Amino acid sequence: MPSGFRELTAGRGFVGRLETGSDLVVEIERFCTEQGVLAGQVTVIGAVRRARYAYYEQDDHRYRELESDTHHEIVGFTGNISLKEDRPFLHAHATFADADGATVGGHLVRGCEVFAAEVMIRELAGVSLVRTHDDETGLALW
Amino acid sequence: MPSGFRELTAGRGFVGRLETGSDLVVEIERFCTEQGVLAGQVTVIGAVRRARYAYYEQDDHRYRELESDTHHEIVGFTGNISLKEDRPFLHAHATFADADGATVGGHLVRGCEVFAAEVMIRELAGVSLVRTHDDETGLALW
Amino acid sequence: MPSGFRELTAGRGFVGRLETGSDLVVEIERFCTEQGVLAGQVTVIGAVRRARYAYYEQDDHRYRELESDTHHEIVGFTGNISLKEDRPFLHAHATFADADGATVGGHLVRGCEVFAAEVMIRELAGVSLVRTHDDETGLALW
Repeated sequence: MPSGFRELTAGRGFVGRLETGSDLVVEIERFCTEQGVLAGQVTVIGAVRRARYAYYEQDDHRYRELESDTHHEIVGFTGNISLKEDRPFLHAHATFADADGATVGGHLVRGCEVFAAEVMIRELAGVSLVRTHDDETGLALW
Repeated sequence: MPSGFRELTAGRGFVGRLETGSDLVVEIERFCTEQGVLAGQVTVIGAVRRARYAYYEQDDHRYRELESDTHHEIVGFTGNISLKEDRPFLHAHATFADADGATVGGHLVRGCEVFAAEVMIRELAGVSLVRTHDDETGLALW
Repeated sequence: MPSGFRELTAGRGFVGRLETGSDLVVEIERFCTEQGVLAGQVTVIGAVRRARYAYYEQDDHRYRELESDTHHEIVGFTGNISLKEDRPFLHAHATFADADGATVGGHLVRGCEVFAAEVMIRELAGVSLVRTHDDETGLALW
């Protein structure tokens, strides 16, 4: 198989709803930690009271944090679970839409306050995704 | 398992293409009704002749309907199927892009006229998702 | 089953990371060709050094190519694999966000240079998706 790709098998599946006022990233990671989901695929449909996201400066190797304090719908979401420093870590990118439908997006960070969130988690079995520092990009990659 | 989360198993899978001129939401719900898909995960790649979507006013507990009558690509889509008033109901959020690549998005509503749409539906078995009124958010949640 | 929909079964699953500097579309298609993935569902989380995408002019039946030469996060991605001219073909739509979180999107084309990309591919078994010319839309549809 080409370098960088690995075959997996289907693990458990979970569907859940997060509490209003909770932190989107924290709650998904907490669930995965409690259930022992060490690798997975995550999607979310929902809305937040405030959005926190980031843009990675590819030349400077640092995240630029962005925020939108108004209410937003989550209109795009792709995420995965892997291990970072021995803990389940959510890597997700999201698009948010405001009251006029205008959109912003980026790398999801802590601080997104949930209004409502329907979460789908599909565990990936037979594969270990462990993030370590990558010199070329400056990112923690598996 | 933490409140709000439930384990599921994989059900049937379907892939389909919607007719040009049909209604995006109506056709997906019609298919799920005919096939008895009562819980599922839905994604779409495609384009619409016009987009209809909404923003939920979190304080006022009402949807604000938005529309874009120009042609759009569907560039983000996350959706699920659950039961609402005893029928399969599509809850989906989408991002749309226009001729210049400019994007808008929101909660998908009826009225999106399909130009072309490739639909993937994964049934969720072993779990019942029934929407009922939630006082805190004003939404119908499972 | 309604015309246009087909039932499938779960095939193999793959998770992979693309090399910095590689072409997003080319590499995914290359992997599917090498592994014999003829039908599948694809998602990506990542960032590109430059974005190339397109808008399909529904009346004129031609793609309008768009580009953004700045660095972008990939904040929305839905894709599938089918057969076009006997080869695995990636049909994907994506949303990209820039340093301010501003988003653009469209139909993904060759020329997106990967900075980092985490790719998930789920093979669809029991179904054959072969693209042929559709007169009504001018598109190659399955």
